[in-house]
Amino acid sequence: MRFSPLLEQLIESLRCLPGVGPKTAERMALHLLTRRRDNGKRLAEHLLEAMENIQHCQQCRIFSEVPICEICLSPHRDASLLCIVENPIDVSAIERTSRYRGRYFVLMGHLSPLDGIGPQEIGLGQLKVLFETGELRELILATNPTVEGEATAHYIAELAKPYQIKSSRIARGVAIGSELEYIDPNTLAHAITGRETILG
Amino acid sequence: MRFSPLLEQLIESLRCLPGVGPKTAERMALHLLTRRRDNGKRLAEHLLEAMENIQHCQQCRIFSEVPICEICLSPHRDASLLCIVENPIDVSAIERTSRYRGRYFVLMGHLSPLDGIGPQEIGLGQLKVLFETGELRELILATNPTVEGEATAHYIAELAKPYQIKSSRIARGVAIGSELEYIDPNTLAHAITGRETILG
Repeated sequence: MRFSPLLEQLIESLRCLPGVGPKTAERMALHLLTRRRDNGKRLAEHLLEAMENIQHCQQCRIFSEVPICEICLSPHRDASLLCIVENPIDVSAIERTSRYRGRYFVLMGHLSPLDGIGPQEIGLGQLKVLFETGELRELILATNPTVEGEATAHYIAELAKPYQIKSSRIARGVAIGSELEYIDPNTLAHAITGRETILG
Repeated sequence: MRFSPLLEQLIESLRCLPGVGPKTAERMALHLLTRRRDNGKRLAEHLLEAMENIQHCQQCRIFSEVPICEICLSPHRDASLLCIVENPIDVSAIERTSRYRGRYFVLMGHLSPLDGIGPQEIGLGQLKVLFETGELRELILATNPTVEGEATAHYIAELAKPYQIKSSRIARGVAIGSELEYIDPNTLAHAITGRETILG
């Protein structure tokens, strides 16, 4: 016996959180029990509420507890611009820049035929419906700069072509504040090819 | 807007867990929503169950959902031996050694007069009741080897004296597998003073 059955059960359940191993789970459970029972109860309620009520926005597939999300409904968003990302967290990353005022579409993954993830699994059927509305002028393909992300971006660009929708890919290059010395050759090659004129 | 209100609320609540900052909380919430809703719901249930039902064992103050815990009730435990620790997690650490077959008493802290934590706050009234039963033969003082832990251990040893209960302190010395070079002078001094005869 190490802990009481209910406590062991809680420790085991906490391990479903990413990055939480047995030691961390123990520490979390004991911390809540010792000092933060109210917070623990509130967390339980909010977890249940979220797990039961949050679905995907029917238009952009972002997590939302209402059928159409706030961004899709907002009159301040440019409906002709659609930014396509792999994960919900990417939306949050782009929103933090305050530079983008269009809408989003979340694939919830990328094409990966070997894992059985084809166009339907990443919502491309739904995306086509958006293409057919004729509202879209440009797609910004912001999938990750990985092999799978690039392949997915190209696939979607091909899909958009017949609808006269322009596709662009987020710029690949050197990160601001980084040092050339430490940048991988692939990225550096992209940065040189995609150079921007600053004078003349 | 970064996430939907329910999702923001969940992310905020997850931050009550020790070591979880805003980024980790985001990752946890999205991970559960994307792939592990069942686990999320189960975690919510187990959290609520634990927060509402786990109390302290009336005898040893360990976390327990029954009035007297399994260890205190076990007939295989030596009732004349009491190991005193600061935190519930210390019980788990000692149990892992499989070397100790007595009972425990959990202080849930240590004496710290400046923080208003006196003898009553660490359950010494309750401990005295155990002394008065006359069952105890030895106290193993396993508070942490810190200034506060030592002070607490000495205080309890003094408390036990009138009852003819022997007090011992866990050995301080070099950790198995460590190298002398890296051991702090205080610990090394303890290891030399407390040396054990191996021959003769």
